[in-house]
Amino acid sequence: MTRVHEIYPDGRVSLREVGLRDGLQLVKTFPSTVAKRRWIGDEYAAGVRHFEIGSFLPASTFPQFADVRELVRTVAELPGAHGIALVLNERGVNEALASGVAEIASVVSATEEHSQANAKRSREEAIANIRRLCEWRDASAHRPIVHAAISMALGCSIAGPVDPLEVIRIAEKCFAAGADVVGIADTVGYAGPKQVGALTEAIVKMSGHPVCVHLHDTRGMGIANASAALDAGARILDGSLGGLGGCPFAPGATGNVVFEDLVFLCESKGFATGIDIEKLVAVRAILREAMPGEPLYGSLARAGLPACKTSVAA
Amino acid sequence: MTRVHEIYPDGRVSLREVGLRDGLQLVKTFPSTVAKRRWIGDEYAAGVRHFEIGSFLPASTFPQFADVRELVRTVAELPGAHGIALVLNERGVNEALASGVAEIASVVSATEEHSQANAKRSREEAIANIRRLCEWRDASAHRPIVHAAISMALGCSIAGPVDPLEVIRIAEKCFAAGADVVGIADTVGYAGPKQVGALTEAIVKMSGHPVCVHLHDTRGMGIANASAALDAGARILDGSLGGLGGCPFAPGATGNVVFEDLVFLCESKGFATGIDIEKLVAVRAILREAMPGEPLYGSLARAGLPACKTSVAA
Repeated sequence: MTRVHEIYPDGRVSLREVGLRDGLQLVKTFPSTVAKRRWIGDEYAAGVRHFEIGSFLPASTFPQFADVRELVRTVAELPGAHGIALVLNERGVNEALASGVAEIASVVSATEEHSQANAKRSREEAIANIRRLCEWRDASAHRPIVHAAISMALGCSIAGPVDPLEVIRIAEKCFAAGADVVGIADTVGYAGPKQVGALTEAIVKMSGHPVCVHLHDTRGMGIANASAALDAGARILDGSLGGLGGCPFAPGATGNVVFEDLVFLCESKGFATGIDIEKLVAVRAILREAMPGEPLYGSLARAGLPACKTSVAA
Repeated sequence: MTRVHEIYPDGRVSLREVGLRDGLQLVKTFPSTVAKRRWIGDEYAAGVRHFEIGSFLPASTFPQFADVRELVRTVAELPGAHGIALVLNERGVNEALASGVAEIASVVSATEEHSQANAKRSREEAIANIRRLCEWRDASAHRPIVHAAISMALGCSIAGPVDPLEVIRIAEKCFAAGADVVGIADTVGYAGPKQVGALTEAIVKMSGHPVCVHLHDTRGMGIANASAALDAGARILDGSLGGLGGCPFAPGATGNVVFEDLVFLCESKGFATGIDIEKLVAVRAILREAMPGEPLYGSLARAGLPACKTSVAA
């Protein structure tokens, strides 16, 4: 069994809290490092094991991630917990490798238009970066997992519809470059479940590697899309507590799939997540306190769990 | 082709606006008849054809439905539009038949506990009422469609989990009693998509009749459940504009599935609804004006439709 299958066991659903990175990309108030540590610690106590904790970007531009190294240590100290950090350029890769973070995510845009506009590089250059990252991983002592995240994989804010065959080709190239995991992201929440299911199934069947599906709830399809991704064989899904994280291309829109609702979905489909929903919902208090201006979404927090009578009506 | 297949054509998705009945069950401010007529008229202009418009209950207890007869006429005057009203007792049945409403819905609880607590009658008595309603339908000149709605079909606020075989037996009895349509309702929003899909598929396969799926978004599963119901063969789905309609058993929880998001889901799955989402979203202004204190939900209204570029990224 390779290392990636220890972190993301086959047949088991792994739910990743991305609120500490994707969720903080656009917020106005940043939680303190102390608040982030409580957030991680309390979610860990609720059963969460996978945390995207920040990115190695210039702290001058993204001060909310200035404490990423401290959070790498926070997660590393929790038995069985797994930390993930995002990188964009070579400097960030070197810093991430030096930090000892367990998983490094690097982005490739699904469309050339978005790649040039967002990262000022071609998709081929982005894939070359992943290849280089994998070489450094192989030369490292701690061998972090390399995650190639394909943004705009289900619709692009610049190019519009995205050809799924193109995404499949990019995924193939990422795996060929040495990526351990490929992520497909509905970055702007354009897709419905049919499209998510079809793309997920194609990449799961093609690769045999773990596939992560990263969904935004921009148009209310988040949970339905997650359900379709699970049906199609994805076993790694991203979400953020309270749906934290807006969308720069749809002001006022909701952000990532609501983590606690995602847990409910998985459990309702018979996938044990190991996460206690009521304990998870209670962690929202930390976010409310640390970011009083940020709207939190989610239905479980409002409605609570169904009444748990075990008797079946005659 | 029987009448019911004209109203709910096979293979085509029919989306029913239930906000004027289920959506108004718990609101504090009631829209005026004029506002309701604008609501119906503007949704009709957006392409909606199926409207649940009220119930024949004592106006002293449910003053919000006192104008149901006028709304029956409003809908009847719109070519191709179809009005639905709810009844609970024999007096209501007679009034509904006399009103000429095109469809009469009568409720059976999935559990004996809920039937006794909510309607003070057994489930067998509720089914006997449907049988009598069908006899009257057959003796009537306009032959309204009879809809047997099975409440708590996916979980009961009193009995907890509900045995799907029990719901299937009740559905069989309703069809045997002469019902044209059977509805399965997740009244308290307990279910996930796996459960909804399995029950829907069983009843669709068993009956050959149209099956309506009525979902609440209490725990955020509404759209995912609707997607599963469509996959399982249901072609009639209920929703309410802005998700109007709370849940008496979960204070503060969202209500029916958001109608406009449901349209987006169907279209994304390749089911043409005939409904213009932007025109539909614009109708929310009528609800906001008529019921300023009621929260409206929904993602399409916040985020808008995806950018509609037709070019596919190279």
